Amino acid sequence: MTSKKVIELFYDVVSPYSWLGFEVMCRYRTVWNIELKLRPTFLGGVMQGSGNKPPGLVPNKFLYMTKDLNRLSEYFNVPMRSPSDPFEAMFQKGSLNAMRFVTAVQEKGKGGDEQVERVSRELWRRIWYEDKDITEPASLSEAGIKAGLSDSEIKELLELSNSKEIKNKLKSSTQNALDYGAFGFPLVVCHLNGKPEMFFGSDRFEVMAHCIGEKWLGPLPDKPAAKL
Amino acid sequence: MTSKKVIELFYDVVSPYSWLGFEVMCRYRTVWNIELKLRPTFLGGVMQGSGNKPPGLVPNKFLYMTKDLNRLSEYFNVPMRSPSDPFEAMFQKGSLNAMRFVTAVQEKGKGGDEQVERVSRELWRRIWYEDKDITEPASLSEAGIKAGLSDSEIKELLELSNSKEIKNKLKSSTQNALDYGAFGFPLVVCHLNGKPEMFFGSDRFEVMAHCIGEKWLGPLPDKPAAKL
Repeated sequence: MTSKKVIELFYDVVSPYSWLGFEVMCRYRTVWNIELKLRPTFLGGVMQGSGNKPPGLVPNKFLYMTKDLNRLSEYFNVPMRSPSDPFEAMFQKGSLNAMRFVTAVQEKGKGGDEQVERVSRELWRRIWYEDKDITEPASLSEAGIKAGLSDSEIKELLELSNSKEIKNKLKSSTQNALDYGAFGFPLVVCHLNGKPEMFFGSDRFEVMAHCIGEKWLGPLPDKPAAKL
Repeated sequence: MTSKKVIELFYDVVSPYSWLGFEVMCRYRTVWNIELKLRPTFLGGVMQGSGNKPPGLVPNKFLYMTKDLNRLSEYFNVPMRSPSDPFEAMFQKGSLNAMRFVTAVQEKGKGGDEQVERVSRELWRRIWYEDKDITEPASLSEAGIKAGLSDSEIKELLELSNSKEIKNKLKSSTQNALDYGAFGFPLVVCHLNGKPEMFFGSDRFEVMAHCIGEKWLGPLPDKPAAKL
């Protein structure tokens, strides 16, 4: 349908606020007249490219974020728990391998964004619920299996993840986000009459709905993620 | 009524997001079963005390904030325009004198928080709509007159603003905010069964309503600020 408004969602599985934005946008895909395009991107590159600093480095902000995420997790019905060592998980280990893997899934996987959605969700669940690694090939394999990929598909995707093609594709996506004005994630870009409208964070859905001429009905906590 | 939930709103008139939060909380004062306590505070002290940096220092964030404020201003129906030189207005000139004046109004003014509300709104309107100064005594006087204060009241309040008593009261309010975990404004503290629940920013009203057992009806753009 040509009348559907195209909405791009830039995200990284290392970012818990991205998870909230991802689930809400996946739920609204069948509620609003939109075409959702998932844009797996590398948050580390966006922070470096924009000169932004992680909010968790200010102690009061870190304490607040923990509390805020607990409340939002319940309200949005996205099961979430902080990793036991958030600094190690987010900044030392990071998400470069994970986002290259998701990029490979998007490039070569079957079923278009459906696999990207499932794999991304499993990676978020690992880091932001099960306190598990998302950097090692074995970790990415486990997430892939839970997302319904076969062993042979995973093997191929892991190899592809290290290719120049995929590294460049992730870099290009990160540059796209920076060009839109990103300084963190999630970033939702709504294309309205050929003009992009950017929304940062997981707390602008009400205003976003107003901008695209749709209605915000709250986070729809009982609605399962829609199939593509 | 003893059953009213006490809600404290920490704010500074230099902060545009505080203005949005202030107007929304003033509108909901007669919609939710709450007792709203206005807490004029000095944002500069909170930023310094928490080690936080102003978001506008990251170029992409600054550009986004300008766009975001335009959209929110329209959606919330709070008329707002950026000062011609936001950095000068916010960081070089700042709000210390203005917040001391508001503190003096709260300490000695008649009518309790009603005058505080009016004077705060006039100061916001000066800096965030009319691109006018809020640091000079003449500027504070003009805001006071528009807020309905008499010449003699204003003269007394300007003198009081420079007293040790008022300087200490503002310091103490700033320390209160830091003790609650502030790293910026607005900060809304909901007192629920003797336990404080903190909400930072002007984008958590929906979750706040959920926490205090009330209903979020949107920003109520047509509702004028309620009288106390």
